[in-house]
Amino acid sequence: MRIALAQFNSVLGDFDHNKNKIINSIESLSAKKAELIIFPEAALFGYNPFDLFERNALVEQQLKALKEIIKKIPKNTYVIIGGFEPNPKNGRPYYNTAFLCTHKKIIKTFHKELLPTGDVFDEARFIEKGNIKNNYFTVKGKKFLLTICEDIWGWGAQYKENPLKNLPKKKIDLIINISASPFYKGKMKQRLNMASQTARYLKAPIAYVNLVGAQDEIIYDGQSFILDKKGSLVQKMISFEEDQNIFDLNTMESWNRDSAKETELEQMRKALVLGIKEFTHKIGLQKVHLGLSGGVDSALVAALAVDALGPNNVKLFALPTKFNAEESFEAAAQLAKNIGAELKNISIESSYQHIKSILDQELNINEFSLVHENLQARLRGVFLMAYSNLANSLLLTTGNKSEYAAGYATLYGDMCGGLAVIGDLTKKEVYDLCKLYNREGEIIPEFILARPPSAELRPNQKDQDSLPPYELLDQSVVNIVELKKPAKTKTDHWLLAQLLKTEFKRWQAAPILKVSEHSFGRGRRYPIAHRARG
Amino acid sequence: MRIALAQFNSVLGDFDHNKNKIINSIESLSAKKAELIIFPEAALFGYNPFDLFERNALVEQQLKALKEIIKKIPKNTYVIIGGFEPNPKNGRPYYNTAFLCTHKKIIKTFHKELLPTGDVFDEARFIEKGNIKNNYFTVKGKKFLLTICEDIWGWGAQYKENPLKNLPKKKIDLIINISASPFYKGKMKQRLNMASQTARYLKAPIAYVNLVGAQDEIIYDGQSFILDKKGSLVQKMISFEEDQNIFDLNTMESWNRDSAKETELEQMRKALVLGIKEFTHKIGLQKVHLGLSGGVDSALVAALAVDALGPNNVKLFALPTKFNAEESFEAAAQLAKNIGAELKNISIESSYQHIKSILDQELNINEFSLVHENLQARLRGVFLMAYSNLANSLLLTTGNKSEYAAGYATLYGDMCGGLAVIGDLTKKEVYDLCKLYNREGEIIPEFILARPPSAELRPNQKDQDSLPPYELLDQSVVNIVELKKPAKTKTDHWLLAQLLKTEFKRWQAAPILKVSEHSFGRGRRYPIAHRARG
Repeated sequence: MRIALAQFNSVLGDFDHNKNKIINSIESLSAKKAELIIFPEAALFGYNPFDLFERNALVEQQLKALKEIIKKIPKNTYVIIGGFEPNPKNGRPYYNTAFLCTHKKIIKTFHKELLPTGDVFDEARFIEKGNIKNNYFTVKGKKFLLTICEDIWGWGAQYKENPLKNLPKKKIDLIINISASPFYKGKMKQRLNMASQTARYLKAPIAYVNLVGAQDEIIYDGQSFILDKKGSLVQKMISFEEDQNIFDLNTMESWNRDSAKETELEQMRKALVLGIKEFTHKIGLQKVHLGLSGGVDSALVAALAVDALGPNNVKLFALPTKFNAEESFEAAAQLAKNIGAELKNISIESSYQHIKSILDQELNINEFSLVHENLQARLRGVFLMAYSNLANSLLLTTGNKSEYAAGYATLYGDMCGGLAVIGDLTKKEVYDLCKLYNREGEIIPEFILARPPSAELRPNQKDQDSLPPYELLDQSVVNIVELKKPAKTKTDHWLLAQLLKTEFKRWQAAPILKVSEHSFGRGRRYPIAHRARG
Repeated sequence: MRIALAQFNSVLGDFDHNKNKIINSIESLSAKKAELIIFPEAALFGYNPFDLFERNALVEQQLKALKEIIKKIPKNTYVIIGGFEPNPKNGRPYYNTAFLCTHKKIIKTFHKELLPTGDVFDEARFIEKGNIKNNYFTVKGKKFLLTICEDIWGWGAQYKENPLKNLPKKKIDLIINISASPFYKGKMKQRLNMASQTARYLKAPIAYVNLVGAQDEIIYDGQSFILDKKGSLVQKMISFEEDQNIFDLNTMESWNRDSAKETELEQMRKALVLGIKEFTHKIGLQKVHLGLSGGVDSALVAALAVDALGPNNVKLFALPTKFNAEESFEAAAQLAKNIGAELKNISIESSYQHIKSILDQELNINEFSLVHENLQARLRGVFLMAYSNLANSLLLTTGNKSEYAAGYATLYGDMCGGLAVIGDLTKKEVYDLCKLYNREGEIIPEFILARPPSAELRPNQKDQDSLPPYELLDQSVVNIVELKKPAKTKTDHWLLAQLLKTEFKRWQAAPILKVSEHSFGRGRRYPIAHRARG
């Protein structure tokens, strides 16, 4: 029996678009004699709808699109499509559903049982719990168990019960898992581990079909795979792109191109590039711009943006005051040249001096202070947002996770922007990605990598005047934010105190592309007004 | 048997503070011969912790504080205190718990079963589900059933099962419900309805003990109450303040002062005043400031701020350009005089002209556009944030819900600020509250109420040039945002389209004080990059 895995990129809420792409995939895969074609979780709706579920018309529109899809399914071909189905009884209004369809017919629907509610997930808001005991089906004499994403993640301690352990003892030929599983460092290993435990427990191979693409902060990496009944990897599909694979359930042979080996760093780069591209296009824009300081953060964002959208769609701005070293501009200009993007230089010195003198006089300010530092950052925001309004271009913001954690960023200043591209990267990861870009020739000028980081908001300023050394800070960001450990070192304690008192800044941050297990953004919901210490 | 209801204001995560206040309440209430003293849900921890639950040390600190409290409970006195308890088994890490305590002893703990996950609630993230069948207890021969907040809200369609209907048939003398139930218009009626159904179904009176205070966007109104076994109101405690009441379970007589009748509008005013005061103080500040435009929104915020913090802690700024009518300043000055707050006038005209000329030249802008309108709004943000930095003062932002819904607000401009005071009020509600302030004499100058609303960012601009008439817009905001209805009218369709394309602004909005059933802010989680239409 020939089974196809359709690793798919949906546009959230664009049912016509998703429908047409699904129909095209069914046509091409059934032409290749696929008998059962599997699309990922929520492939028809897009994922994650979050509170779009408030709009009842949307699931109706999706069901209408599904009806049009099934008309196009050839006879004797079976298709599994992820989407949502209304719950007719009491409880949350929808089920997270896999529709098993064939020519002109929805044969059966299957519901997700384990609903993730941690980090970026919110499935308890609108999704009613199903029961995977009902998720068996038979097609052409073969027996299948259908699971949806989290349904195979009940092996850890975070769930009271593992629904897989409540299943009846039945022989099955294949476990299917359709997923919309976000990327982060180390995620693939976790996925293989969960799927492998499942295959071994149920003594059956597993086909894992993941979404690909990006939606706001969340990046789906694809990397769908097949494991045999011993839990060993048979084949893995490619990362961060749509892909298709057909395998024969009897022989476990497959028709797919092999996915290349990639380092985690290379995957992180691909994730960020995809995140920029998808966000920009899915909000209907083509162009982005950013302020280029001559520092490492904005240099990396510029390189990633050019990777995502091409040099003609990326505009760079140098917005210096007298505090910016001449070498900063030279470095920025060299970078712009290396990546082929246009750099515009507009001094904000006179604007800064003009407003500074009014503020100093009207508010009786006698000495240089944070007021003047933030004024520079906010004036840059004013100039960059003016270009957004003028050119319908998305402003990318360039803060990194270590800065965000410490609150070392100016609200309405350098935090301005529609997407925080590297807001989930420690400073070390920023350098590592820059070095990755330089592997085959200098993209990020060595001068930028070599100089000590500085915000250049006052004479001879260095980040390390205000922050712990980045090696220590980065480690504390991992310990405290990502791993949620207790504070142990002096830097841990410093960071934890900073975190708790700067939440008001991150509350108003732009969406942050998530590449770690725990990022700032919608998946980390801290209160502002509290006195918790610990 | 004498039972005390302790309507209580906690500081989230400040265990020493909460502990000491709880000990003082126990002392004063047991001196009044209370035998069972009931504190609200999460009274010892504060509510809502959201992802503070990541910090394991905090629940440990809370349990330590509880141990100190029980030392101070007099013999023969029983106390119920809301808090959190670790879950020793698989599942989410904590239970939402009521601790039944007496002298030096925790007798028993009870766990919340129904976990709210809609709107502002996120209890499925860290809280494991309890079973209220275990929540019976007997004290001094009287039989009680302990429920926590949502446990009595299972009567509607949003839960698959109502746990109250699974209870064994047992005679009980009193149902206790401890709550941290947020205020919104119409909430009290819903609460009485849920509690009344519960009392009638279980044939027992109910004591409902609610938190009071505010935490970020959420305002707790208190208004604890007692219903008899027929579900009729015996007594209601006061709103938006701490309060205590002792009643006799045998006679249902109580010692409490009566709560005054209040209109919903008056309650909304109290809610906003409490919200400002608590947010400011709980983040450790004393002072606030805002830009006063001579329009109705900022006028109302100024009046509310003075109510909350006193005139000496509120500083007002007029920041005109040439587009601001002279009458706007006069109106602002009159208002400032009426409320006794200082008004500082700083023209931003020269700053605006300075930057405008640079932008026009550098970016080849030939005509007046949105770029220049937003520039004015953002320069005001720059000046107001400079004062924040200088004076350690909280900037209040003044947008209303109708504007936020339409996206009629400048990101990093008039949206700057740490708290959006009236971001959940329609334009009509803004006027209604202004009129409430004027009931006993003119506070908000009549001129402000009479003039047509204008952003004054270009010559002769009126809001109605860009927006539907406010009567229609307000109605659509209620229909589409609050009631989540399908779009029907032309204005509904216009608003829905605006909503879906301006989510990027609200994603970065300041915390919004919630006074309606569905507010913008953390309780409404829409994606940005999608193409949903409906």
